[in-house]
Amino acid sequence: MRILLTGAAGFIGSHLCDRLLAEGHSVIGMDNFVTGSRRNIAHLVGNSRFQLIEHDVSNRIEITEPVDGVLHFASPASPNPDSPYGYPQLPIQTLKVGGLGTHNALGVAKANGARFLLASTSEIYGDPLEHPQKETYWGHVDPVGPRSVYDEAKRYAEAMTMAYHRYHNIDTRIVRIFNTYGPRMRLDDGRVVPNFMGQALRGEALTIYGDGQQTRSFCYVDDLVDGIYRLFLSPEHDPVNIGNPVEISILEFAKRIGALVIPPCDIAFEPTKRGSGDPQRRQPDISRAQSILGWAPKVALAEGLQRTFEYFRKELAQ
Amino acid sequence: MRILLTGAAGFIGSHLCDRLLAEGHSVIGMDNFVTGSRRNIAHLVGNSRFQLIEHDVSNRIEITEPVDGVLHFASPASPNPDSPYGYPQLPIQTLKVGGLGTHNALGVAKANGARFLLASTSEIYGDPLEHPQKETYWGHVDPVGPRSVYDEAKRYAEAMTMAYHRYHNIDTRIVRIFNTYGPRMRLDDGRVVPNFMGQALRGEALTIYGDGQQTRSFCYVDDLVDGIYRLFLSPEHDPVNIGNPVEISILEFAKRIGALVIPPCDIAFEPTKRGSGDPQRRQPDISRAQSILGWAPKVALAEGLQRTFEYFRKELAQ
Repeated sequence: MRILLTGAAGFIGSHLCDRLLAEGHSVIGMDNFVTGSRRNIAHLVGNSRFQLIEHDVSNRIEITEPVDGVLHFASPASPNPDSPYGYPQLPIQTLKVGGLGTHNALGVAKANGARFLLASTSEIYGDPLEHPQKETYWGHVDPVGPRSVYDEAKRYAEAMTMAYHRYHNIDTRIVRIFNTYGPRMRLDDGRVVPNFMGQALRGEALTIYGDGQQTRSFCYVDDLVDGIYRLFLSPEHDPVNIGNPVEISILEFAKRIGALVIPPCDIAFEPTKRGSGDPQRRQPDISRAQSILGWAPKVALAEGLQRTFEYFRKELAQ
Repeated sequence: MRILLTGAAGFIGSHLCDRLLAEGHSVIGMDNFVTGSRRNIAHLVGNSRFQLIEHDVSNRIEITEPVDGVLHFASPASPNPDSPYGYPQLPIQTLKVGGLGTHNALGVAKANGARFLLASTSEIYGDPLEHPQKETYWGHVDPVGPRSVYDEAKRYAEAMTMAYHRYHNIDTRIVRIFNTYGPRMRLDDGRVVPNFMGQALRGEALTIYGDGQQTRSFCYVDDLVDGIYRLFLSPEHDPVNIGNPVEISILEFAKRIGALVIPPCDIAFEPTKRGSGDPQRRQPDISRAQSILGWAPKVALAEGLQRTFEYFRKELAQ
C-alpha cells in the first residue's frame, strides 16, 4: 500500500513509520515539526519508499499521488503545561489538528477511497469513574477545563471519523492509545518517563507530584505499534483500546527507574500541580483488542525501561 | 454595535436578530439556509440596519465591514433522525459548523477585537447523571454515538472558545441553551413542540414515544433571547445555562397541547425509537444566570404555548 501518515516525525508516528516500511508499504510522512523531531526520521532519508512532506495538516492537504491508507497521528500529546511541547502551550494548534486536521485527513481518505485510522487517546475517558476503562465507557471530561484542548479535540475527531464511516462509507478505524513509552520520546516533553529518566541520568532526585499513589499503565512503543498495525489490517470500525493493563503506582515506577543507575536515585515529593486535571487512575481494558486482534503486550516493563534508558543515555551524551 | 450573527435565519437566531435590532444595533446576518428559513427574516428586508449574507460559516468568512460583536448561532439543532432538518440527516454539516464554523467565527472576533458569544447547548450534558444540571457538571456523552455529531461538535466549540479566551485574550461568552419553543420553529423539524402542535392542528392523536414519563423543561424563546442578550452585555466568560427549570413530563405536556383544540386530542403511545439517545431528564440549574445576569424566565407555559399555537395555526393556514 501507499500510505499517508500524519505526525510521521513524532514519537509514535516515527515508530509506526518504521513498521509500515518494514511491512513493505510506501509511506508519505507528513509533519510540521511543532512537536515532531527531524532526528526521529533521519534514518529514513534515502529510503526510496519514504517521502517526507513538511506541512501542517490543519491546512488543506495536497498530495499528488493516490494513497490506499491514511493514518492520522499528528498532534501535541503531552499534558505538561511547563513543557514547550505540551498541549497547554499549544492549545489552538492542538484543537486545530484534532478538528480541522482530522477533517482534512478524512478528506484525503474520501477522495482516494482509502482506509483511514485515527490515533485517539485514553484522554477521551478524562478522569474516569470506571476502572479499568472499556471502550463502551463514555468518559468524564470537563469541556472547558485546561485539558479540554486535547481531550475534546480527540472526542470530536472520533465523532467525525464515525460520521465519515456511517454517512460517507469510509473504511475507518479508531485506536485509543493509552500511556506509551520508549525511545524517541522528547526528553523535555514533560511526561513522567522522560522526566524520571532525565533526572536519573543527571544524578538528580526523581520528582513525584502528590503522594505517588496515583497509578498509570505503561505500554512499550513496539507493543503499541503492533496493536495499531493489526487494527489497521482488521475490519473493525468501533474504537479499540491499545495499552498495557499492568497498573503501577508512580512511586513504584520512580523506584524502578531510580534503580537503573548506581547508586539508586532519591525520590522527592512535591505538591500536585493545581488545576492539572491529572487523572488518579487510568488503565485499559484490552479484552476487545485481545479477541478481535489477537493482540496483547509482550515487552516486560524491565526490558522496556532498559531500552528506553539506553536511548536517553545516548541522547544526553551527544 | 455592529454585530455578525451566524444562523440569523434560524428559529433562535431570527428572534435574537429582532432583539439586537430593537436594541439599536446593526446586524450582519449570515445563514446558508440549510435549516434556517427565509421567512423567519422576511420582515427585515428593507431595514437599513440589517444586512443578509448567504454563506456557509464552515467556509472562510469574509466580511468587508468591521464588527464589534460576533454571535455564533449557526447549526442544525433537532435530534430527530426522521426530519430532513435533524442533525442525524446532516451529520457532517453539523460537525463542520460546530468545529470549522466556530473556528472561523472566532477568527472574525480575533481579527476585529470583537466580543464573541457561542450558542452552546444542554446537549453537552448528554444523558445526564446529575439533576438538575449545573454548569460545573461535565456531562455524559457517547463520543461515537448517534448524537455525537452534535454533542461533540458543541463540546469542541466550547473548548475552542475557552482557548481563544485564555490564550488569545478574546472577550468570549458561552450560553448553554436548554429546550426552547416558540414561533418560527419548523413544523417539520421533528421536535416535540412542532410535532404535537402539527398533530393537534390536523386533528390527529399526539404521538408519545415511550411511556411519556420522561421530562423536559421548556423555555419560551423570548425568555431565552433575553437571557442571551444579558449574557452578551455581561463580563462573564464561563458557560451559563439559560433555560426554564420548570420540569414537565411529556405526557403532561401532550395533555396541555391537546387541550388547545376542541375537542381535545387523543394521545397515542409508541415504542421509544431505538438508538435515539434521548435523555430521560434534562433540567437546567439556572442559579448562575439568576445571580450573574439577574435573569429568570417570565413567560408561563400556558401563555407561551398559546402564542406558539397561534403561529403554527397561521403557518398551516397558508
